[in-house]
Amino acid sequence: MEAYEVLKDLAIIIFTAKFFGIMARKCKAPQVVGQIVAGLLVGPCVLGWVSQSDFITQMAEIGVVLLMFEVGLETDLKELVKTGPIALLIACTGVFVPLALGAVLYMGFYGFAPWGSEEFFKAVFIGTIMTATSVSITVAALQELGKIKTKVGTTIVSAAIIDDVIGIIVLTFVIGFKSPDSHPGMVIVKTIIFFFIAIVGGMILFKIFLALDHRYPHTRRIPIVALAFCFALSYVAEKYFGIADITGAYIAGIVLCNLSDNTYIEQKVDVSSYMLFGPLFFASIGLKTNFDAMDSTLFAFCICFVIVALLAKIIGCGLASKICRYTLSDSLKIGVGMMTRGEVALIVAQKGLAAGLLTADYFMAVILLILFSSIATPIILKYLYSKDTKKAGQ
Amino acid sequence: MEAYEVLKDLAIIIFTAKFFGIMARKCKAPQVVGQIVAGLLVGPCVLGWVSQSDFITQMAEIGVVLLMFEVGLETDLKELVKTGPIALLIACTGVFVPLALGAVLYMGFYGFAPWGSEEFFKAVFIGTIMTATSVSITVAALQELGKIKTKVGTTIVSAAIIDDVIGIIVLTFVIGFKSPDSHPGMVIVKTIIFFFIAIVGGMILFKIFLALDHRYPHTRRIPIVALAFCFALSYVAEKYFGIADITGAYIAGIVLCNLSDNTYIEQKVDVSSYMLFGPLFFASIGLKTNFDAMDSTLFAFCICFVIVALLAKIIGCGLASKICRYTLSDSLKIGVGMMTRGEVALIVAQKGLAAGLLTADYFMAVILLILFSSIATPIILKYLYSKDTKKAGQ
Repeated sequence: MEAYEVLKDLAIIIFTAKFFGIMARKCKAPQVVGQIVAGLLVGPCVLGWVSQSDFITQMAEIGVVLLMFEVGLETDLKELVKTGPIALLIACTGVFVPLALGAVLYMGFYGFAPWGSEEFFKAVFIGTIMTATSVSITVAALQELGKIKTKVGTTIVSAAIIDDVIGIIVLTFVIGFKSPDSHPGMVIVKTIIFFFIAIVGGMILFKIFLALDHRYPHTRRIPIVALAFCFALSYVAEKYFGIADITGAYIAGIVLCNLSDNTYIEQKVDVSSYMLFGPLFFASIGLKTNFDAMDSTLFAFCICFVIVALLAKIIGCGLASKICRYTLSDSLKIGVGMMTRGEVALIVAQKGLAAGLLTADYFMAVILLILFSSIATPIILKYLYSKDTKKAGQ
Repeated sequence: MEAYEVLKDLAIIIFTAKFFGIMARKCKAPQVVGQIVAGLLVGPCVLGWVSQSDFITQMAEIGVVLLMFEVGLETDLKELVKTGPIALLIACTGVFVPLALGAVLYMGFYGFAPWGSEEFFKAVFIGTIMTATSVSITVAALQELGKIKTKVGTTIVSAAIIDDVIGIIVLTFVIGFKSPDSHPGMVIVKTIIFFFIAIVGGMILFKIFLALDHRYPHTRRIPIVALAFCFALSYVAEKYFGIADITGAYIAGIVLCNLSDNTYIEQKVDVSSYMLFGPLFFASIGLKTNFDAMDSTLFAFCICFVIVALLAKIIGCGLASKICRYTLSDSLKIGVGMMTRGEVALIVAQKGLAAGLLTADYFMAVILLILFSSIATPIILKYLYSKDTKKAGQ
């Protein structure tokens, strides 16, 4: 492919994403929903103007990394420390309820499987796919609503980060029982080392940035070096520690969130994000969808899979929030905010395929879950917040 | 390659490009020189940390498109119309002097070739490679010096645009004699149709943008739709009319340069450009370089090729400028500004290779020309402008 060919895809995606984003807002839905629909429409599923390519996948990856970096930058560190223990509890129940219900769903469809049998692991694996929340859609929706810095927003983001880590540990355990290459113990050790290095290294780097910022405030070098740091930490997290790159990006943002120039950095990153990378990321979710392989049994399973996956997060995370004395309305928001799934679910499914725990047909269920949760979550969140506003207005 | 792998390359390139950019400025050279050196350093030639990949090539392409779009947006349309005829003359001499001197150089090395012989076409082809100016480096240097909107700046940019078109027509003629697939007449017709469509379509689109801008001033949709338009026109130019995508991007910028929000669009595009795409474009020139295939004869030819190619543009364009009553100092600036070569020279060489007019060894000469002209031009331009300032100060 000639390099200039990508310009066509970019032109189509950013134009339609903006157009449907504006349409979505006119229909009182968040813009991201419109952007996903735009991807669905121009993708192979409907019009076929743009197809998935390595380039779009890579641009989308940069898009989600930038998004999480921004969230990190906007973090109120004090609020994060305060919500930390609660987020841990929410993340744990948010992993184990879907894990259990997913396994039950599989057994409901294909018969009970005794503990330790091949079928048992397949059932557990279906649950494992459901565990990892992908917070990016929720984050974008909360940003649009201006609620990302609230207690609920911080709780969701930190719970989703912890949930990612737990999800990856569970994945490694499940696969560990099938293949001898994987060492569940190693994963835990690696994770601990990563967070240790990130915290210690982060504190040192923060001092360096502070000096740089003090000497050259509001110069281009500040956001550029910050961006390079974000990319580097994302890469290192995924490559050497098996932790999602978006978690690395979020932590990079947290490291820099107390700089006096953090808003300046965020503004510069945000321009690239909303002009190009953001729309590409959201549209790429729609682009991935393809309904060709669908039949009636698979369809039934997919529908149940999506429903169980969504309810499991609402129940798991919502209950934990309620226990932690959030109001019913806030607990519901946290549950709904945690129900989005994204590329991590696809990665988990991919690993299951490689380990023989899953066949390719189930990918449809995962994609539907991503698509449906990505579209439904922002709409429901907006509705829940608008109810609050109405109540406050009365 | 996993999608996250690109993050490593991005982190290394944007960090080193910024670092060497700052170093270059400390040495009184323009930042772009530092960015090219950064690419050379981290590339296969020296450290080998980053290698050329499709992704980087595509990102670099977007980078150069954004750069030319910005130049178009900054254009003073009245000044352009005023300098048009002069630019045409400069472009013509800037194509034919290198064409002739390149052919003479080849014959000097490999013996005289009679008119119409195989060797004669090879000689003419060496000249053809030298014809197309790549204005992006000059543009970046003039932007840094704050001279892009001057008469000299506008003359260089419009001459380079016309020069591109003439260069492509020459290429098609030369190849047309070798292969029966190529129709030189068609190229001229296509070029005329493109500019006709661009001017008429541009006027209509300008009205639409004007209405949009009037209704929603300073909203995100303005720069986003403008960017989509720029990508679309770049793609259409290259795909359907065989005109370089950067020319399409420049024209897209000119179409929008009279909008009241043109500065707003330019600011938003500029952030993406200097944060990510610009450094990638300049570093990618350094990345492409590889000295492995070099021997002494080729080395001698390369050196002569570079010297002739640079002098030919200074002589051709400088003389034409002098004839058009520019001062000696301005004529020299125009000659130097026009001597940069870029990816168009590589594309021309590639086409010659496919047509059997060139062997792969000569690529080294082209790359050296690109590299040397990219580094030398900004330095010489800065020197010429600083001399002016000193004179004015006396």
